[in-house]
Amino acid sequence: MNGKLYALGVGPGASDLITVRAARLLGQLDVLYAPAGRKGGDSLALSIVREYLLPHTEIRTCHFPMSAEEGEKQAVWDDVAQQLRQEVEQGKQVGFITLGDAMLFSTWVFLLARLGRPEWLEIVPGVTSFAAIAARAVVPLAMESQSLAVMSCTAPEAELEQALLTHDCVVLMKVYGRLGLVQSLLARLQLFEHAVLMAEASLPGEQCWRRLDQMPSDSALPYFSTILVNKSWLSEESL
Amino acid sequence: MNGKLYALGVGPGASDLITVRAARLLGQLDVLYAPAGRKGGDSLALSIVREYLLPHTEIRTCHFPMSAEEGEKQAVWDDVAQQLRQEVEQGKQVGFITLGDAMLFSTWVFLLARLGRPEWLEIVPGVTSFAAIAARAVVPLAMESQSLAVMSCTAPEAELEQALLTHDCVVLMKVYGRLGLVQSLLARLQLFEHAVLMAEASLPGEQCWRRLDQMPSDSALPYFSTILVNKSWLSEESL
Repeated sequence: MNGKLYALGVGPGASDLITVRAARLLGQLDVLYAPAGRKGGDSLALSIVREYLLPHTEIRTCHFPMSAEEGEKQAVWDDVAQQLRQEVEQGKQVGFITLGDAMLFSTWVFLLARLGRPEWLEIVPGVTSFAAIAARAVVPLAMESQSLAVMSCTAPEAELEQALLTHDCVVLMKVYGRLGLVQSLLARLQLFEHAVLMAEASLPGEQCWRRLDQMPSDSALPYFSTILVNKSWLSEESL
Repeated sequence: MNGKLYALGVGPGASDLITVRAARLLGQLDVLYAPAGRKGGDSLALSIVREYLLPHTEIRTCHFPMSAEEGEKQAVWDDVAQQLRQEVEQGKQVGFITLGDAMLFSTWVFLLARLGRPEWLEIVPGVTSFAAIAARAVVPLAMESQSLAVMSCTAPEAELEQALLTHDCVVLMKVYGRLGLVQSLLARLQLFEHAVLMAEASLPGEQCWRRLDQMPSDSALPYFSTILVNKSWLSEESL
């Protein structure tokens, strides 16, 4: 059997929001690479897929230091990409899991940039976190000729404001530590009644806030917190 | 058993790109509503899910006339929403399927606006077409502090241009019949080398073009054609 590498988007959090294809492939792996938030820490992506794995699948947790200096990050990506390539060359079935979709805000893309587009690579798309948020909050994304912008709150404030002015629907990811900034933008643009904040959508710790104007700006938010703004929808509609 | 309505995103086209949850729910339905492109026509969404259905599940194909006048469209949405509510009130397990994700560019949202947020409704998110396109074309979407805009080519040209100027990554949906317009935008903004056009991603008829500058602007495209532009990625990278 020829070696293969599967980059698998595992969805937003609930184990059954993974695709049928990813679930099936996870049950055929020799080795699984799972990114972890902290060195030696747990991997949320791994907890999502554990029920689909074979007992003999080797699990390698890998830590990507997000706050490290550029050179250190590059060295880790080079190293993991090299490991993945070597496992495939040994004829193994190798998986690399990534939260949400594999191609959106994912460390996987740094590895992809090093691996290129080889025959032995298959990327399996996944459900994005914002699709899960829209479903759980019952607030739609764009429709018809409308547009959707997906922003990271780590972007400059002016870019966030421009997106909120320009697009019908805006997803603001990585709100953690930046709630006050987003609140002041929503206040200035009079968008509070169209906004909803959701944390850990589809997971047991899921939380949803529909009155962002009433939240203290120093509220302790879970790490996976996202704001969804839809200008043609009231976030409290049909309550 | 209490009646329930499941709005199910069935993913981009391949049957195994549906979620495990949607597959399981499809196997518990009394009635399934499937939108069809033409009156009496086939439903792509239905062909995706057929293998997961029970033999006794009743299938109701419904046609939403997209080019009809506003009043006619409203009447159809009112009617289907009313039917769904009645089935649930009769204690049935009811499904409504929608291509890609249920909350993005989906007719389902017109029904949702009529149904509100009742206890008996569950929305199950799905893999969006553009996630499948990114995976199959091996062109990533946004990462880190970058931004992604998802546009419909039915939007005004100035809005499409603004999105291409502003965002790192842009998905242009509904290219069908508007290839020449997009080509002239890509030429003016010098983005041809960052663009890829994909039709029917994940389906047997999948096609991918990486040289959009060389395509005749009157090329016959399949209906489901989408362009993905990523300014920090060369579309022919690693060929």
